[in-house]
Parts: sequence; C-alpha cells; structure tokens
Amino acid sequence: MINPYDDTYFMKQALQEAQAAAEEGEIPVGAVITCQGKIIARAHNQTERLNDVTAHAEMLAITAATNVLGAKYLTGCTLYVTVEPCIMCAGAIGWSQLSTIVYGASDEKRGYSRFAPQAFHPKAVVKKGILEEECAEEMRRFFQGKRK
Amino acid sequence: MINPYDDTYFMKQALQEAQAAAEEGEIPVGAVITCQGKIIARAHNQTERLNDVTAHAEMLAITAATNVLGAKYLTGCTLYVTVEPCIMCAGAIGWSQLSTIVYGASDEKRGYSRFAPQAFHPKAVVKKGILEEECAEEMRRFFQGKRK
Repeated sequence: MINPYDDTYFMKQALQEAQAAAEEGEIPVGAVITCQGKIIARAHNQTERLNDVTAHAEMLAITAATNVLGAKYLTGCTLYVTVEPCIMCAGAIGWSQLSTIVYGASDEKRGYSRFAPQAFHPKAVVKKGILEEECAEEMRRFFQGKRK
Repeated sequence: MINPYDDTYFMKQALQEAQAAAEEGEIPVGAVITCQGKIIARAHNQTERLNDVTAHAEMLAITAATNVLGAKYLTGCTLYVTVEPCIMCAGAIGWSQLSTIVYGASDEKRGYSRFAPQAFHPKAVVKKGILEEECAEEMRRFFQGKRK
C-alpha cells in the first residue's frame, strides 16, 4: 500500500511554510513537527517580524509542539525542516529530544553538521536531502530577489 | 579610580537571577546583558515554568535586549551568564552578534566550548571564570537539593 503521508508529504508541508515566510519577506525556512504521523506544529522563520534572531522556524515549531503536547520533551516526534538547522536550532533539537530530524537542503555555511555535529540526542535519526532541490531553490530565489 | 560597575558587579547581578531561578525550582542559571555599561535585560532559566526547553536564561535575555534596543543585533553589548552557554544559546549568541561574552562556571558536559567552539561571532571576546566558584556552587546546591 502506498502511504501518502511519507517524508516527502511532510516536507512539502514544511516547504509551504517556507513559501509563506518568503511572502512575508523572511528568509524562507519552514518546519513542521509530527507525532504519530500527524502534524502537531508548523512554523516559519519570523526573525524580521519579531525582530528576534532566535525566531527561527525550528525554534518556534519546538515551542509550539511542546505546548500542543503539554510535554516538555518531543521524544518520538519528527521534525521536518526545509534547510539544515543552524547551531542554535540543533541545540534546541537536542534539548527537546526529538527522535527524528528530516531536512531538505544542506547549509554548508551555517549548518550544524559542520559546527556542532553532536548537537542532537545520541539516538536521533537524521535524514537529509528530502526535496533538497525545491528547498534550496526557495532560498536561492529569495536571495536573488534581494540582490535586484 | 575604582569602577564599581566591573565584570564582577554584573556577574553578581546574573547570580541574583540564578538565585531567583533556584527559588522557583528552575536550574539556577542567570544572565544579564549590558549596553554601554548599563543593564538592558536580565533573565533566568524558565524551562519548567514555561514548559519549554528553549527558555534558557541567555535566550530570554537576548530576546528581551533586542526588544529594549529595538535593534535586531546586539553588537557592542555584553552578556554575563553564570554558567557556560550550551550549544543552543551559543548559536543564539552568534546570531545576535553580541560582542563580549562573560561566563562564570564552565560546563564540561553541555558547554559550547566542547561541542560548538566556533559558535560566537569571530570577533567576539570571551571571558570566563568570573565568580566561578559562586556560580558553580549555586548549581551544586540545586542538584544536591534535588537528590534529597
């Protein structure tokens, strides 16, 4: 049986959040968190709107997800995020004990895997490259627009 | 002339925040941010109260300081924090472009210097060990109390 709710499906949802960010003039990064196959939180980067460098999509999604569950830890949950998390978000992902992290485009300049490769929970599963091209294209389009 | 508003003075203020955290049953970490020698934000760990693993003293202080200044970046500002920042907070400190980071006790288990040593802005100045013993004692006392 084909499962329509696979990693690609949820990454598309994260990508929709990224697109919403772009429309608001925010760097287009989107995230969703799932629990038992259902989306419990969705967020996009809001650093400009909130004038707050900590308001990355992942941070907002983690805070929202813990509110939804009423739990402090997100053990068993999965984060989908369009771009590889930065050091800050990777640290938050570690604290939250998220079990699975799925990201689209890599971020060689700011990504955690270069600067803080041990940030996640030791048992966390990481999948990368899901809809990589679409996620990267969203970023490219945004920064090309900025340069005009 | 003796300057009463030196690093020790501001670390004492951060320590007061840590003590306030302990009284609330929170892990006792406190932070203040100064700008031109004046405190513009003070915060303590609120992960329990807010049920949010991202609510570390440094994160709350950074968000508060940017609100006070109406600026997105904290260039020229100094963060005083009683315990060495974790990966998440170090990443946030990097994004915020804080110029000087002063911390009391080292955190060998969770501190950024082991896991993400390049997290701060490349030009940031780091001072450690200010009131180290008092800051560490605050943590020891808290965890010893937990074990009773």
